[in-house]
Amino acid sequence: MSKLRVQCFSLSLDGYGAGPEQSLDNPLGVGGPGLFGWFFPTRSFHKMTGKEGGTTGVDEDFAVRGFANVGAWILGRNMFGPVRGPWPDESWKGWWGDTPPYHVPVFVLTHHARAPLEMQGGTTFHFVTDGIEAALQRATAAAAGKDVRIGGGAATIRQYLHAGLVDEMHLALSPVLLGAGEHLLAGIDLPKLGFACSEHVATANATHVVLTRRR
Amino acid sequence: MSKLRVQCFSLSLDGYGAGPEQSLDNPLGVGGPGLFGWFFPTRSFHKMTGKEGGTTGVDEDFAVRGFANVGAWILGRNMFGPVRGPWPDESWKGWWGDTPPYHVPVFVLTHHARAPLEMQGGTTFHFVTDGIEAALQRATAAAAGKDVRIGGGAATIRQYLHAGLVDEMHLALSPVLLGAGEHLLAGIDLPKLGFACSEHVATANATHVVLTRRR
Repeated sequence: MSKLRVQCFSLSLDGYGAGPEQSLDNPLGVGGPGLFGWFFPTRSFHKMTGKEGGTTGVDEDFAVRGFANVGAWILGRNMFGPVRGPWPDESWKGWWGDTPPYHVPVFVLTHHARAPLEMQGGTTFHFVTDGIEAALQRATAAAAGKDVRIGGGAATIRQYLHAGLVDEMHLALSPVLLGAGEHLLAGIDLPKLGFACSEHVATANATHVVLTRRR
Repeated sequence: MSKLRVQCFSLSLDGYGAGPEQSLDNPLGVGGPGLFGWFFPTRSFHKMTGKEGGTTGVDEDFAVRGFANVGAWILGRNMFGPVRGPWPDESWKGWWGDTPPYHVPVFVLTHHARAPLEMQGGTTFHFVTDGIEAALQRATAAAAGKDVRIGGGAATIRQYLHAGLVDEMHLALSPVLLGAGEHLLAGIDLPKLGFACSEHVATANATHVVLTRRR
């Protein structure tokens, strides 16, 4: 059965999934890039950004798992871009250039309709205006038996958690403090939602935990 | 110069320093003992509880550091005991039996005066009714050049953090979820208070981080 998974979501020691003051120049917010100290050196990230080399090992293994058996993605509007309100035109095509790293259908939650956007490399962005459950239905159908991955941001993950729809979360706790920004878990009672920690492995760069929900 | 330190303070993955529903039978709250999966097996804890053996290694090293150069402690009232309101009598002498594991003066924050309580092994409990700064002054004087350790709980640490008085915090992030209870860092902007992560080392049982404040 298709699962709804959060993967490779980096959190600061104080629980933030992105720093404050996100902007076009600073899509991860102030201090946000520090969250990805475990990911940037990996072979996966190197490959994604057209570079040779990169590390192997536990961090890389989690990066690879994040893409394994994923047939569709769901992204919040802010993770797709900095545009707010109605789309002024079709010019914004995501943060990732002509060939986004998804290579499968991606469903973007938004209040503003827009035609699907087909990119190079197999990624098509679909804009979903009728809510998180509709997005999940469409993503699950598009995934054709594979899993659906929620890319984020924190607000989107929180909505799916509150709705009891997330099956598995891999979080990478990075040794940085952000102090403010988007808190992932504030006010969310994970044990009550059925989650327990099923894996726990640390590297020099992050502590990886997998939280799994009883089904 | 004497420092104010938090040491060996265990946090769940969702940021709680104790579970919900603390009581006489359950001083760490529901699920709370799971926070100490890194500490209970150590040689230090074994020794503290009169047992032979116990593990050595990183977890034990942090347990030992927690007592090194500590000349006095500060505890919140709830960490001293389950009694609320005025002391009905002198019968409650802490959770730890006749020989508490402190072996130095311990300053207990309370709204209700009580005579000092001298225990075996060098621990004397002093009850401080005039606030956290007065408690710190008295503890610093008693520590005679050594550091002062705040034992907890979360509410007490939060008060000293808000007041900008904590110099160093060692937190042990345990691979458990609590979902509710006392959240240590909610609403506290550690970078703004001058803290950064200065050490990060993980074991199979916990991720140890040391957060240090610029002085």
